[in-house]
Amino acid sequence: MAAPLRIGKLAVIGVGLIGGSFALALRRARAVGRVVGVGRTRRNLAAALARGVVDEVEARAERAVRGADLVLLAAPVGQTPGLLAAIAPHLAPFAVVMDAGSTKRDAVAAARRFLGAALPRFVPAHPIAGTEKSGAESAFADLYRGRCVVLTPLPETSARALALARRAWERCGARVVRLEPAEHDALLAAVSHLPHVVAFALVNALARRPDARRAFRFAAGGLQDTVRIAGSSPEMWADICVANRDALLDALEGYRGELDQVRAAIERGDRRALERMFERARRVRARWLVNRRR
Amino acid sequence: MAAPLRIGKLAVIGVGLIGGSFALALRRARAVGRVVGVGRTRRNLAAALARGVVDEVEARAERAVRGADLVLLAAPVGQTPGLLAAIAPHLAPFAVVMDAGSTKRDAVAAARRFLGAALPRFVPAHPIAGTEKSGAESAFADLYRGRCVVLTPLPETSARALALARRAWERCGARVVRLEPAEHDALLAAVSHLPHVVAFALVNALARRPDARRAFRFAAGGLQDTVRIAGSSPEMWADICVANRDALLDALEGYRGELDQVRAAIERGDRRALERMFERARRVRARWLVNRRR
Repeated sequence: MAAPLRIGKLAVIGVGLIGGSFALALRRARAVGRVVGVGRTRRNLAAALARGVVDEVEARAERAVRGADLVLLAAPVGQTPGLLAAIAPHLAPFAVVMDAGSTKRDAVAAARRFLGAALPRFVPAHPIAGTEKSGAESAFADLYRGRCVVLTPLPETSARALALARRAWERCGARVVRLEPAEHDALLAAVSHLPHVVAFALVNALARRPDARRAFRFAAGGLQDTVRIAGSSPEMWADICVANRDALLDALEGYRGELDQVRAAIERGDRRALERMFERARRVRARWLVNRRR
Repeated sequence: MAAPLRIGKLAVIGVGLIGGSFALALRRARAVGRVVGVGRTRRNLAAALARGVVDEVEARAERAVRGADLVLLAAPVGQTPGLLAAIAPHLAPFAVVMDAGSTKRDAVAAARRFLGAALPRFVPAHPIAGTEKSGAESAFADLYRGRCVVLTPLPETSARALALARRAWERCGARVVRLEPAEHDALLAAVSHLPHVVAFALVNALARRPDARRAFRFAAGGLQDTVRIAGSSPEMWADICVANRDALLDALEGYRGELDQVRAAIERGDRRALERMFERARRVRARWLVNRRR
């Protein structure tokens, strides 16, 4: 059973898939009183209101956080420093601040730089959930059910703030895991950021062909699944690539090495080597899926 | 309405997902009398019999094709030359021979080399359908419904053979399209063979990391879809890579160029360039999906 939790006022900065689903899940769990949403477009805020994701909307984050018990930053990660700087002077002395970004070292650095006295009440979080869709329209209360949420607390993070963050995600149906920020960024560069770059690059490589239009007519379910995540938010992913630069370049390097090996085997017509490589990938994938289902 | 068709005896060489589903679809359409299946493992042949995919099984292709009206080669493409050489002397004078491989220039070359007098009755075909599963167990009658089947007839191909092939696929529920073998191979290298190589290489790159076990624990739906096709048959795909070597190397070259551009933009922290690239990919993908659904 998830521990009881009551958040009087929740401020969600960025009412998209991630922030909106967090609000919907906590509302359904009756764990939250009032939800204030901040967004950049009127259209998205109107959708958030219309769908009952938030009770009220604000154009400016610093107004929304006043008196909030919990503030969730759920904007593209490139905005984290600016948002933390903007809200810091307006936070209640009891406010817990959490981000939900896909990169954690940059969030920690921004918090150290801008949160001042509120630093012990900052909890870096990354819900490993999402779809290729974005915006308040795509939010749903079950997004986090059974999913993993990584918390990467600082040495300064207070036990109260950490416990509140943990309980909130548990009430959303998630499993909470703790990691060091650097380890989080390295692991996620490999299993999430790299695949996104791969998918975007694959679509663009096809689009650049002179016969692209004709080629896409013969594309089937294989390509469709492989590039599903190329439908993800360009803004969000550009931010992640910049924020997690070195870990992502490392992962990309390993992938290019692997790709070079396949290419060399194709060049020399080495059927055996190709079959061995593909067999290895199939085995690894199958083992992963078995463990995943557990 | 699909034109009427009656195939007295169908021989399927390779009773896996592709060959088995072809047999099941024609049986359901009552377009075929007797189906003889050839396979390499007893277990797979037993499954094909048990599931009613075939009426009888044969260990050797040259026995199975005797008296057959239609012979479908549905083994990995590397076996096409050997199989054509083996069956050529045993084909009935009326037999139409069709392959179902993912590469067409190699099938045409093998037919020219080994089919002799039967060459005008050879129809190179590629049903653009499949899943990451393989074997008779995975065959199902609806696999080809609404899917595209490419025929790449030779100048010598008889009108009767071509019409029979077309009608057979139409009775499976497929749309039939004609292409030149070289164009087929270039287009499919881009939209099918390249994505498979990408998926296999991505899984192997992750598996090679020292923190692989831990990393896979944090992998989610994005990675799962991106590498679904890395579950495909290693044998089949090693054959395809070798058979379509030059077209695939071309496609791989374009993809590596694209990947290099993303990497360079990440290295110099060029958020703008990354967002533009990702936006382009998202737009291209969205347009493709709209056209696909039509």
